[in-house]
Parts: sequence; C-alpha cells; structure tokens
Amino acid sequence: MDWKPNRHSHLTIQEQIVDWIKSRIEQGDWSVGTKIPTQRQLAMEFNVNRSTVQLAIDELKADGFLESKMGSGVYVANNSWNALLNRSQPNWQQHIESSIHKPNYHTIQLINEYEQMDQIIRLGTGELSPELLPTKQIEQSLKKISLDSKEIGYSSPQGSGKLRRILCNYLKKRGIQTNPENILIVSGALQALQLIAVGLLEEGSIVFQELPSYLNSVHPFQSSGMQMISISRDKHLADTLRTLKRNRQSLFYCVPTLHNPTGYNWSIEERKYFYNVCKELNIPIIEDDVYHELLFESPPPAIKSFDISGQVLYIGSVSKTLSPGLRIGWVVAPTPVIRRLADIKMQTDYGSSAFSQEIVAHGISSGLYEKHLIKLRKQLKTRASFVEEILEQRFKKIATWKKSEGGFYIWLRFHKPVVNKALFLKLIKKNVLINPGYIYETRDLHHIRLSYAYASFEELNEGLNILLELIQQ
Amino acid sequence: MDWKPNRHSHLTIQEQIVDWIKSRIEQGDWSVGTKIPTQRQLAMEFNVNRSTVQLAIDELKADGFLESKMGSGVYVANNSWNALLNRSQPNWQQHIESSIHKPNYHTIQLINEYEQMDQIIRLGTGELSPELLPTKQIEQSLKKISLDSKEIGYSSPQGSGKLRRILCNYLKKRGIQTNPENILIVSGALQALQLIAVGLLEEGSIVFQELPSYLNSVHPFQSSGMQMISISRDKHLADTLRTLKRNRQSLFYCVPTLHNPTGYNWSIEERKYFYNVCKELNIPIIEDDVYHELLFESPPPAIKSFDISGQVLYIGSVSKTLSPGLRIGWVVAPTPVIRRLADIKMQTDYGSSAFSQEIVAHGISSGLYEKHLIKLRKQLKTRASFVEEILEQRFKKIATWKKSEGGFYIWLRFHKPVVNKALFLKLIKKNVLINPGYIYETRDLHHIRLSYAYASFEELNEGLNILLELIQQ
Ligand SMILES: Cc1ncc(COP(=O)(O)O)c(C=O)c1O
Ligand SMILES: Cc1ncc(COP(=O)(O)O)c(C=O)c1O
Repeated sequence: MDWKPNRHSHLTIQEQIVDWIKSRIEQGDWSVGTKIPTQRQLAMEFNVNRSTVQLAIDELKADGFLESKMGSGVYVANNSWNALLNRSQPNWQQHIESSIHKPNYHTIQLINEYEQMDQIIRLGTGELSPELLPTKQIEQSLKKISLDSKEIGYSSPQGSGKLRRILCNYLKKRGIQTNPENILIVSGALQALQLIAVGLLEEGSIVFQELPSYLNSVHPFQSSGMQMISISRDKHLADTLRTLKRNRQSLFYCVPTLHNPTGYNWSIEERKYFYNVCKELNIPIIEDDVYHELLFESPPPAIKSFDISGQVLYIGSVSKTLSPGLRIGWVVAPTPVIRRLADIKMQTDYGSSAFSQEIVAHGISSGLYEKHLIKLRKQLKTRASFVEEILEQRFKKIATWKKSEGGFYIWLRFHKPVVNKALFLKLIKKNVLINPGYIYETRDLHHIRLSYAYASFEELNEGLNILLELIQQ
Repeated sequence: MDWKPNRHSHLTIQEQIVDWIKSRIEQGDWSVGTKIPTQRQLAMEFNVNRSTVQLAIDELKADGFLESKMGSGVYVANNSWNALLNRSQPNWQQHIESSIHKPNYHTIQLINEYEQMDQIIRLGTGELSPELLPTKQIEQSLKKISLDSKEIGYSSPQGSGKLRRILCNYLKKRGIQTNPENILIVSGALQALQLIAVGLLEEGSIVFQELPSYLNSVHPFQSSGMQMISISRDKHLADTLRTLKRNRQSLFYCVPTLHNPTGYNWSIEERKYFYNVCKELNIPIIEDDVYHELLFESPPPAIKSFDISGQVLYIGSVSKTLSPGLRIGWVVAPTPVIRRLADIKMQTDYGSSAFSQEIVAHGISSGLYEKHLIKLRKQLKTRASFVEEILEQRFKKIATWKKSEGGFYIWLRFHKPVVNKALFLKLIKKNVLINPGYIYETRDLHHIRLSYAYASFEELNEGLNILLELIQQ
C-alpha cells in the first residue's frame, strides 16, 4: 500500500482512514466479500496506533460498509456502499471459489505474506540470505553484457541457444551428456514441474514420491488431477511400485541430492538401484536436482548420467545458488518430451526472460559462477555449524537432527508432536516465521524445516530462543 | 543442434550422419516414435547437401532404425535399436497424446519453428524488428542499475513493489487510478490470460470474444475447458449476451485498442456503450490493452478508466513496445482478484524475473521509455506507409485493406478465398512466412495478418512480391 494518513490535514487520522477505506470500496478495488488486511497490518502500513485503526473500522462496521466474520477477519459487507448507490459489482469471491486451480495452503499463504515484512525472523526460508547472493558480481556482469537485438525479441520455444550450449558443457561435470536440443529453459524448476503435469500425464496418472515431500508444499500435479502416492525406497521398492502402478500412467518424483525438506543425500548405490527398478517397471523419473551444487563434499553423479533409455527428466535451476529472482531453470529430456514441453511453454508465457538467460549464460561461461559456488559452500557450512552448535546446546533434550551435508536445511525432529498450526501462529505473533513439517507431510507434527541459509546469525540465535521458549511452555 | 559433420574425418559425411543419428537414438534423446527433423532442416543444420542427408536416412531406414509415415515424415522405428539391444524405453509419444494441455495448431508450431531461421522473410510477425528495439538504451540502463540484494530473492506474490508504484503513476495517463496492491506483475500478457483462466472461472464458463481473435491463436481458456463464444458488438449486444449467457459464469475478452489481428480501434462511444452493457449484465471484462502506446494519434481512455464497480480486469505489457524478451506485463483488478491470481502465480513460477522488472522500472521512471515511444510511433508510421504504398500499387485489384491507425498490423482481405494451408506451406518453401487469417478465425480463407513491424523494407518488398506471384498463379 502506498497511502499514509497526513498528519497535517484538517481531518483526524481516523477520519482519513475511514475515507480511504470507503474510496477503496467505492472504486471497486475492494469489492464485496474482500477480506481486508488485519488491524495489525493496517496499523503497520499506515504507521499509526492500532487503536486508531480499530476505531476507524468500528465506524465503518456501524455504517454497514464492513462486517466481521467470527474468527476469520473483517470483510467488505454485502449490503454496503454498492447497495446504497444501487451498483452491481461482480461477485469475484464466487468466481474464485468455483475455479479450477487449488489455492495454496493457508499456512503457505501466510508464509508468503509475512516473508515480505522486514522485522520478521525467517527460520525456515528456502533461499539464500541477501548477503550470500553475489549481488555485486551480478551488477558487474550487467555492465559487461552486450545485448544482441535478436536475443531480446520473442524467444525460440526452447530458450536461448547460447545458454543451452553453455549448459551442455556445464552439465558434463555431473556426468550428463546431452545436446542443446534436449534442453528446455524454464522459469525455475517449479515451472518445469507445472509443464510436465499438463504436458505429459493424463488425468488420474500416478505421481510417486517419498514422504515428506516438497511437492506437498506446492501442487502442480495435484491441481491437474494427478494422484500422489507416497512410498518409501526400501528393498521391496520394485514390488511396491508394481502393485500400486497396475496399468496406470505414472512418474516417480525424487530429489536425490540434498532432499527438501530432509537434507538427505542418496549414495551412488541408492541411485543405481532406484534407476534400475524404475527402468525395469518402465516408470519415468523426474530427478529434481536444484541443490546439486550445494553439497559440501563433491556430489555423486546424477541419476540422469546412468540414463541410456530416455527414462529420466532432469531438472536444474540457479535459484538456490545464484539468485531466485532470475527465475531460470532447465529440463534435460528426450526430444519428443522437450518439444512437447516447449510447445506448452510457448502457449503459457512465450518463454523465459531473455535478460535473465543472458545473465546466467554470462555467469557460467565466465567462470564467475563456479568461483561463487566455492565461496558459497563455505559460507553455508559455517552457518550450518553455527545452528548445529545452538541445537547441541539448547535443543538436545527435546529434539533430534542429523548433521547437514549441504544445502539449506536441518530437519529438526521434536520428540513430542508440538509442531501444529497453533505453534506456527503463536510464533508469527512473536515475529518468528517457521516452515512446519506438516506442509511437507500433512500428518507430521514432529518436524520443523530449519534453514540456516536465510536469517542472520543474530536472528538465528534469537529466533531459535523464541522457538525454544514457546515449545517449553 | 550443435553438431556438424567433420570434413576432415576419415569417415564420409554420410557415415558421420548415420552414426550421429544412431547415437541420438541410443542415448534415448530420440526415443521411439520421435519425428526426426525434415531432410531440408537437417541439410541446413549440417550445412551439407540434401542428397547426402537422404542417403543417410535411407541407410537407417534399411537397417530398421527409422521408418517413414506417409505424408507425415520420418520417425524413430518401434523395432529399432531398442528392440535389438532389448532395452525398454518409455513411450513418451503415448504420454503426450493423452495428457491435458492442447498442442498448438500445426500452423503455429511451424511459424514458431521457421521464425528461428535466419533466411526467412517474416511478413506476419507480431513483434518489433530488432532494429526498432531500444537495445542500446537498455544496455546503457543495465550499466546504471544498482541492485538491491533483497530484490533479487524470491519475489513477493504480486511482484516488485517499486515497479507497481511506478506503474500506478504511469497508468494515470490513460485515466486509470489504482494502487500498488491492485496490480499484479506477470510474465507477459499471455500469462495473465492463463492465470485468469485457471483462477477465476469454473470449467465450462463462457468466454465471449469478437471474431477474428488473437485468443484463437493461443488457447489459455480452451485448454482449461472454457467455452469460447464469438459475437459481434452491434446494437443488439445486450440481448445477444443475455440470451447466450443464461446462468453461466462468463467473461468478455476484448482488445479495444488496435485489435489483433484487425488493427481496429474502438471510439470512446463504443467503449462506454460496451462497458455499460457488460455492467448491466454483470459480465466482467478482460481489457487486453497491450497495443495502447502504439496508436499514432493519442489514444482514447481505457475502458478500465470508466470502471467504478471492479468489473474490468485490465492487462498491459511492454512486449510490443520495449522488448518481448523482458516478459513483463501487468494486471490491474480488484483486490480479491489480484490476491487470487498472485497466489496461483506463486504456485506456477514463484514470480517474474526480478531483473526484467528492474529494467522496466528503470525505463519508465527515467522517462527513457516515453522518449523511445515517441520515436517508435514515428518509425512504425513510416513502415505502415511503405507497405500501404506497395499494396496500393500491386494488390489493389485482388485485395482490400484499411489504412493503419497504429500498432503492427494490416488486415489484408483478398477477394477470393485463397489463404489456405497450401498457400502457407508453398510460401514457406519460398522462405516467406505469413500469419494466415485462419489462425484467428478457423473458417476464414480471405485474410492475411500483414505486419509492417518486423521485416526490413527490402524484405517487405520482396516478400510481398513473392506472395503476389503465388496468389496470382
Ligand atoms: C526441491 C525443489 N524443487 C524445486 C524448487 C523450486 O525452485 P525454482 O525457484 O527453480 O522454481 C525448490 C525451491 O523451493 C525445491 O526445494
Ligand atoms: C492482443 C494480444 N494480447 C497479448 C499478447 C501477448 O503479449 P505478451 O508478450 O505480453 O505475453 C499479444 C501478443 O501477441 C497480443 O497481440
């Protein structure tokens, strides 16, 4: 919001707020049924006391513009302004409720919302702290980039040829031999999953996954009507898959390197065994490898590197390593798959940002990216040790965890099932934001996905203290 | 494709091509059922004679690796390599055919494909010629941009606050009064349509449109199961809409400024009449205004500017004016709509490129964008006159058209129904690419969407000559 009350106006602050809210309703910005921001949020935005906001809202309620719904907040009333002025407004709320795509879980919407606020301590955020981003280097690169007018027009369906050639070379290091025409540039790994969902699977197909799973916190497959089946990778894997798959189309989604949220890292043997089972059963694999570069020790080869039958759809991204704001990722897959996904991408958004692609191409080909990675891994390792030290000192009696092998996360398990939505909300009130385990596995009330990548050392320390306090209460 | 045969190898060119294709099949890149590129394309890519390619392909056919399907091309055979080596490969073709999203029309796939080739003359392309893009200015801006580390992380759901504030100010000039929280940044106008389709409409909703329509050349609504109904805006509009809508959810999609493909521009009266009818019937409007800045004379106010009931979803973009490679557009709409679309956008791709957003923000706020627009309109006007002159001299007897009022297009109508797929394909053989009218209205065989924005003057001249020749045959 842009508006703030004017302290030098002849109107009181409360009157100004009332007028402003009325004008939002009048203009149709806040249509019937809109949930308005909380008093707390408005007070913060307007930089005024919460009691002033409350008085303004009470006045608007009394006049019939707003109404409270028990336990859920304040809404623009049905019989408000519009009725008075005999206006008809579309009932957007009804449109929204009957439409196709699932809303995000409420907890995740809250996370997205509160992440925007400066004073909040983010203990779970799956991204690099601003201070770990190579902002200055990227700024330097921007100065060196010379643009080709042809490259900043509408893109070819698969994305920049230059970037795809550079990636072919880059991916060799993880054992992947491929060609530019077997690569599709996407706007982040998440978009790759979205394209696969609508472009390669019939409704009702099975998507196998392990539990907990990142896929439960977003829902590209669920929103397209796929059936998610969670299984564990034990020695009965082949039998389990055979029994569950029957004659249905299926895919197996996995994160073999530094799994989100557990941080688990598959050994070579586990990778080979898994590949062979899926190959035998003709179950294609989505290998989501966005954390590949962040293993503290050198990473085992990608599953894709064993793939001689076009079984693996391989996904990478620079979101976790360079900058999520670039929105650049890639898929490596057999030609018909790439052509199909590229066709749908063209229908969806006509390609990814040419500028972002140019920046990534420059970063990788100049070697700056790899230099940055070496430093980044060190910094992450220091941060991991810092948090592990705090855990060791203060959480040992109530929780367990595994030492981090890389990436961002520690999958902290409390002995007791204390991690529920109430805890999440109580922490927000104390300006601490966590990623509770139930986002990744609905019935899990034991885990928190701790991230040592985002918050500052002081914040990590303070946030963990507040967490501990609330849990011990 | 990256590979080229080596002229100094001990193997013949033909042998090298055979080996290369075999290795593609072996690695699973070209899986069973993959349609391989045409001989013509391969010859061009490899920079060899077509007859050499043909010999290589004949050899692979004889050995059972490839097979021809009558009139459709050459495919990786079922009983190939894989069978020989007893490998199982996923049948991706089957996956693709049964999946959810519609493929692009074949003609549009061909357009996307041939647009990538350098020697082709593009008579229909809906984008600015590389020489009209302010590439140097953007390069200069890149040097001046100072990045904020916080801005290049994962984005807030609605996109950069800075850009949204700048847009609020920018949109005032077209009569639109709005707030940053009523704006969503999207990856181009096309993505806005996609988000609206899955986020605001129940399956089977009606999307009204005029004919011909840009929406027939992409299908965000069709792929989500909406029913497209085409109607004309005459004085019976209200009755027609009332009869057709019944109790169904519906939206009206329109392009009131420089319509694609006709170039038609609605007067103020038409805009007001249309708005009032839709308001009375409670039919929300999607106002797609991506050509707004390109009207040669000053544009009439946006329909959104009359909107006091939250009835209009307003869409803009910099693709047609600054650079399509930025992939930046916006939606202005009531709060619940924006929140809903932002939520789905987060689930789809976690936001648009922060770098692109920064570039657009810099361009608009520095005034460079408006400066560029003044020059651009002049250049487009000169190009329009150039093409109109050619039409006047050579096409007068066989076709009609209206003088362009701005934008990119002339909607050229041939007296006879000559614009069929055969003509499209014959023109490709002569290296000329057109956008035939049937992309925008299936049964239309009279029109071509000529674009004077892309090809050079020489190309426009030559391309139109070839077109004339073929049509007169
Ligand atoms: C396993 C995994 N896959 C994909 C993504 C999405 O990454 P991107 O920003 O490239 O879309 C994430 C980030 O949260 C992730 O953890
Ligand atoms: C009317 C119309 N709307 C939307 C688009 C898509 O624009 P963008 O590149 O912003 O997605 C186009 C471009 O072809 C168009 O002509």
